[in-house]
Amino acid sequence: MMPAMPKPAVRVGLIGYAFMGRAHSNAYRQVNKYFDDLPYEIEMHTICGRTPDKVQHAAAQLGWQHAETDWRRVIENPAIDVIDVSTPGDSHAEITIAAAQAGKTVWCEKPIGNTLAEAEAMAAAVANGGRMSAVFHNYRFAPAIAHAKKMIEAGKIGQIFHYRATYLQDWIADPAFPWVWRLDKDLAGSGSLGDIGSHVIDLGRHLVGEFTSLSGKLKTFVPERPDGSGGKKQVTVDDAAIAIAEMEGGTLATIEATRFAPGRRNYNRIEINGSKGSLVFNMERMNELEYYNAGDPEGLQGFRTINVTESAHEWAAPYWPSGHIIGYEHTFINLVAHAIRCMKSGQRMRPDMEDGLRNQRVLDAWERSNESGQWVKI
Amino acid sequence: MMPAMPKPAVRVGLIGYAFMGRAHSNAYRQVNKYFDDLPYEIEMHTICGRTPDKVQHAAAQLGWQHAETDWRRVIENPAIDVIDVSTPGDSHAEITIAAAQAGKTVWCEKPIGNTLAEAEAMAAAVANGGRMSAVFHNYRFAPAIAHAKKMIEAGKIGQIFHYRATYLQDWIADPAFPWVWRLDKDLAGSGSLGDIGSHVIDLGRHLVGEFTSLSGKLKTFVPERPDGSGGKKQVTVDDAAIAIAEMEGGTLATIEATRFAPGRRNYNRIEINGSKGSLVFNMERMNELEYYNAGDPEGLQGFRTINVTESAHEWAAPYWPSGHIIGYEHTFINLVAHAIRCMKSGQRMRPDMEDGLRNQRVLDAWERSNESGQWVKI
Amino acid sequence: MMPAMPKPAVRVGLIGYAFMGRAHSNAYRQVNKYFDDLPYEIEMHTICGRTPDKVQHAAAQLGWQHAETDWRRVIENPAIDVIDVSTPGDSHAEITIAAAQAGKTVWCEKPIGNTLAEAEAMAAAVANGGRMSAVFHNYRFAPAIAHAKKMIEAGKIGQIFHYRATYLQDWIADPAFPWVWRLDKDLAGSGSLGDIGSHVIDLGRHLVGEFTSLSGKLKTFVPERPDGSGGKKQVTVDDAAIAIAEMEGGTLATIEATRFAPGRRNYNRIEINGSKGSLVFNMERMNELEYYNAGDPEGLQGFRTINVTESAHEWAAPYWPSGHIIGYEHTFINLVAHAIRCMKSGQRMRPDMEDGLRNQRVLDAWERSNESGQWVKI
Amino acid sequence: MMPAMPKPAVRVGLIGYAFMGRAHSNAYRQVNKYFDDLPYEIEMHTICGRTPDKVQHAAAQLGWQHAETDWRRVIENPAIDVIDVSTPGDSHAEITIAAAQAGKTVWCEKPIGNTLAEAEAMAAAVANGGRMSAVFHNYRFAPAIAHAKKMIEAGKIGQIFHYRATYLQDWIADPAFPWVWRLDKDLAGSGSLGDIGSHVIDLGRHLVGEFTSLSGKLKTFVPERPDGSGGKKQVTVDDAAIAIAEMEGGTLATIEATRFAPGRRNYNRIEINGSKGSLVFNMERMNELEYYNAGDPEGLQGFRTINVTESAHEWAAPYWPSGHIIGYEHTFINLVAHAIRCMKSGQRMRPDMEDGLRNQRVLDAWERSNESGQWVKI
Repeated sequence: MMPAMPKPAVRVGLIGYAFMGRAHSNAYRQVNKYFDDLPYEIEMHTICGRTPDKVQHAAAQLGWQHAETDWRRVIENPAIDVIDVSTPGDSHAEITIAAAQAGKTVWCEKPIGNTLAEAEAMAAAVANGGRMSAVFHNYRFAPAIAHAKKMIEAGKIGQIFHYRATYLQDWIADPAFPWVWRLDKDLAGSGSLGDIGSHVIDLGRHLVGEFTSLSGKLKTFVPERPDGSGGKKQVTVDDAAIAIAEMEGGTLATIEATRFAPGRRNYNRIEINGSKGSLVFNMERMNELEYYNAGDPEGLQGFRTINVTESAHEWAAPYWPSGHIIGYEHTFINLVAHAIRCMKSGQRMRPDMEDGLRNQRVLDAWERSNESGQWVKI
Repeated sequence: MMPAMPKPAVRVGLIGYAFMGRAHSNAYRQVNKYFDDLPYEIEMHTICGRTPDKVQHAAAQLGWQHAETDWRRVIENPAIDVIDVSTPGDSHAEITIAAAQAGKTVWCEKPIGNTLAEAEAMAAAVANGGRMSAVFHNYRFAPAIAHAKKMIEAGKIGQIFHYRATYLQDWIADPAFPWVWRLDKDLAGSGSLGDIGSHVIDLGRHLVGEFTSLSGKLKTFVPERPDGSGGKKQVTVDDAAIAIAEMEGGTLATIEATRFAPGRRNYNRIEINGSKGSLVFNMERMNELEYYNAGDPEGLQGFRTINVTESAHEWAAPYWPSGHIIGYEHTFINLVAHAIRCMKSGQRMRPDMEDGLRNQRVLDAWERSNESGQWVKI
Repeated sequence: MMPAMPKPAVRVGLIGYAFMGRAHSNAYRQVNKYFDDLPYEIEMHTICGRTPDKVQHAAAQLGWQHAETDWRRVIENPAIDVIDVSTPGDSHAEITIAAAQAGKTVWCEKPIGNTLAEAEAMAAAVANGGRMSAVFHNYRFAPAIAHAKKMIEAGKIGQIFHYRATYLQDWIADPAFPWVWRLDKDLAGSGSLGDIGSHVIDLGRHLVGEFTSLSGKLKTFVPERPDGSGGKKQVTVDDAAIAIAEMEGGTLATIEATRFAPGRRNYNRIEINGSKGSLVFNMERMNELEYYNAGDPEGLQGFRTINVTESAHEWAAPYWPSGHIIGYEHTFINLVAHAIRCMKSGQRMRPDMEDGLRNQRVLDAWERSNESGQWVKI
Repeated sequence: MMPAMPKPAVRVGLIGYAFMGRAHSNAYRQVNKYFDDLPYEIEMHTICGRTPDKVQHAAAQLGWQHAETDWRRVIENPAIDVIDVSTPGDSHAEITIAAAQAGKTVWCEKPIGNTLAEAEAMAAAVANGGRMSAVFHNYRFAPAIAHAKKMIEAGKIGQIFHYRATYLQDWIADPAFPWVWRLDKDLAGSGSLGDIGSHVIDLGRHLVGEFTSLSGKLKTFVPERPDGSGGKKQVTVDDAAIAIAEMEGGTLATIEATRFAPGRRNYNRIEINGSKGSLVFNMERMNELEYYNAGDPEGLQGFRTINVTESAHEWAAPYWPSGHIIGYEHTFINLVAHAIRCMKSGQRMRPDMEDGLRNQRVLDAWERSNESGQWVKI
């Protein structure tokens, strides 16, 4: 039989092969299988990491055609269209700026930089480069979040009074947990703040609007940790971050990110209260959206648990029949599908580098408020 | 047959017959029925309110022997031992101080005063009077909270990292909801802050420790409301209050109280994360305590839903067999039972006027922080 | 001041002072406090039990005017209007029939008899007596169940396809749990079947309709138990009962009652699926009713958790504001309030002895099906 | 760089490209990406369907090398090792038997046949063929189910008293839903019984043991449906199936499968009660396992919600960090990984054709019991 007409390819070079590298690779592998109608085919061209045998192995296992150890060679490769920046935060800026200058499209992990200055330089470089960009705030593409967004835009929640966000994890609550790179300010930029706080900042910006001012606090409960060789190493980032904030339109926000909440593995939970109703989402039950409709008849009002797996739910529809749930990895597949469509249509990809920069301004304000003990305008 | 030997009576005079008056009356009626072993019998001597026919009706319905319209006469009555102050906040101080000076025992609704100055005067008067006192922070006596307290004291949660409290209601989220006395600063002292925020402050003080500093914000979303006669009346209290705080021992706290959370009828929810485990309580499911034990075997860890209705649960045991739940009103019965025991034993009643004062200091700091935009020490 | 006009009294004689005696006493004490508009005042006249000092103590603690050791004297007492039969099942028939013959109104615990023959004789005697009657299937009066009933009658659920009921407890799952009277067929009639199975049969009859045929099975997992004096005593009742059934209108039912479900303290859960929606109730969270409305817009469908504590909820309204939950004991208060109203109005009290008899026919069919291994018509 | 050493390939021929064809294709695509240590690489050789352009399209989208329209040619192809039978039930037997006779390994969808006779012939053919086989009872490979199995085998639940299974769906509850092949006995064999009832029978056999006898009922609520061209077509299968049963070791079971439970999209829920604890699983929240440990200290007992996403959870470990959930499709990936390992090791694959046959015996007994109104031995 005749093969189906091939689509034009978008060739990706992925820098980094750890947790995010694996999640992105999966998305690239799967996106054209689930989204039949995309304008481009993803071609998994090159994966790049510093350790030859490891990156070689990653390429084979994750499905990449080529393996590379120097990211500059990936950027120089004219065959490659998109540079996916999935390294630790301390190299994001350098790679992104170089890639943008080389005329590549950049898709970057979050938070985009380790500092606001880096983020500004990155956003400027990308803007100068003139290509679309994407930032991997994947939770926007959980079907429940996308559906919440649609409901809010349709006015179903009315005027928003409260945004209440907690991203709780517990992987370092035990003081005996060893030092890792994510606990080093130079490498990671910040701790819970940037790693997970940035996600709930993004969800707030996405669903509610811009943050206008905040009062925030950072805390390190365990200041040093076992270094693996009998000694101790200093923790130079925050273990937990809390803030109160105001948002456009007068919304009050409380935001919290912590790695010290035993029992909460990946409890990214947000609640939005508006004049016409409320919405609740928790990433640990990401296939569900809780919705309270203040317009329901008296005596029949209550939060509904919507199983967001139906044909009416945009980012769930490509997968399985109603009630057959999807997982964490599908948020990345959806994000990449959306990025591909935006590449073709010219519609602005959201979240992009500009979103990444605005996010970083909130992180920066949080750090400055922590130092000054003052409310900080954003 | 011979009647059972009567117990000595504690004769109560209740000032106020609205919501709290009803809840307290119920507690007085029921306490000796459920707690067979109390040293004293409650005698429901006099109920007092300003409107003769209403207080008369309340006396008949709620089970009081006498009705009175002037609280001063209740205080002067030598037959009465305890003055229960359940009026709106603007008269707490006057009644409490007069009662204490008259040598009465005072049991007072929360927050004890409309201002810190009032609270200080009240606590001083009660201290001078030399009698025990009680404040109706009834949620301490939900069996689940009492059990949580016991677990924390036994070290089951370890060092406490986070206290996360939200008291959410929705009864005025609709701007068409009419003006009521609780929306007037002169009568009510504050809005969500004192009415429900004070409860989660109390739970924090009870379970975790003192608040040492905070940064807080208050907000009025709907500045005026229908006055019932075609006009508008100003709302002079907060609709919502949010804060971040630090507590003794380094605990980080986020606290929120709002009446603008559609779908949340009485969502008094707290979460405590400690080095050895976590606890979660929600008053809407007050018979349940969620408990995460970090010491459970790997692969078998998870939040347990404890049905706090067993003989092992001190404040549930007097009621029904396991799984046969109790309600809101039982927290008051428990509080009164405890107050009666403390009266006899001389053990300090908690929460008492001193607790009420400390609570008020946090409310006051929250208001000052809201005005200054600064962190405030407590 | 002038006392309020007294209402005519209904004088009750309560036979039995164990668990049910306590629950009923509470209801009698509280009913006129919460239900201001009842036509009659309950007068707690006489409590009766076999052991003089115990019944004396119960009278004092529970609030009865008189204590008595011989139930015949209670029935003979012309001052008494209502005989409340709360003894173990083996004496229900004798007391009820005597009371009915003496012209008393009978309010009886469930299941009304230990055998179908007893139940028939009781229902006949009560019918001959010409007085209204009541059976303490208290769960009908949980506000959520009453609201579900109203919704079903209003057609909100449409044609009912499924009734799925499980009443799960665990108090004898441990084989070391000692023998008690509830494990003796002569005293208790049956085990899980009559004790808790009868409740879910009643809920099915109340909410859906009559059972027309069933295939059932009974099982005793632990055939003998410690007798408290070093020996063993035989268990002569079922530990668990399961059945499939058909109901009027073609509804399929599954019913289960067991005392061998570790972790389920009082898990009386029912689910109803109809052509227009579904309802779920669980007595352990009795203030909640889950409701699925098939008519909700696509993409916004889901089970709502209705907090059944509002003014729109008939049997919750007399208590506390929205979200302030009630407990197990309030179902009895509600039942008694309803019985008092029916006494006055002449409206048929439901559930009454006729309901008790029909319930017993289902229990009897279940036992016969268990013996024959056949479907049994009811 | 040097490519990694290739693994030996298992070449699959997939017959069918509808829902199950898509789910299996995904599993084949992903299995070697997630399971790095498998002895064989899956090669997606040929996909087969009757309609040329559709199968061509499916091949391209799902990642198959070849497309074919005649299943006999797939079986005859010596390059193919495994025949995956994912067609409607009426062709399972013919394809399976032919494949087994051709010396192929057969992996077959469930229930394996439309009748017991077919299932027996299939199991015999596969046994004669001497190859391992697999049946796609994928829910065994939900990490929570696999963990439950491990816990049961380790004795954590003790003697099992109850198996309580309900598989509820709602996709045809609306009588206006049109006729589809799954409603035709000749094509589908049965309705809810085989389609979803077979899954909970499998879970019961897997986790508890063999069913020894049952009393079952089948029902068709809507006997005819729109045929899409203005007429009506008869529904010849059951809409709902309910049963009570006994299992090896004295366990009592209730089993229900229905497509008439509005709001239940894919509510495959089981509960197991044993002498030492209980387990609950619901496929709609497949990343969670509820566990009650009767050995927990008094006052601290309760169902725990285990987030089954940790390194301690065998079939979750290959995916993402704790709390980052997986979905429906991963159960198929896990099943295929296990099948590949069994192919190499010679360990008996479970579930295999013999399991499929035993499952069918239960389905057959259920149908016979429905006809006779009698308990049926299995």
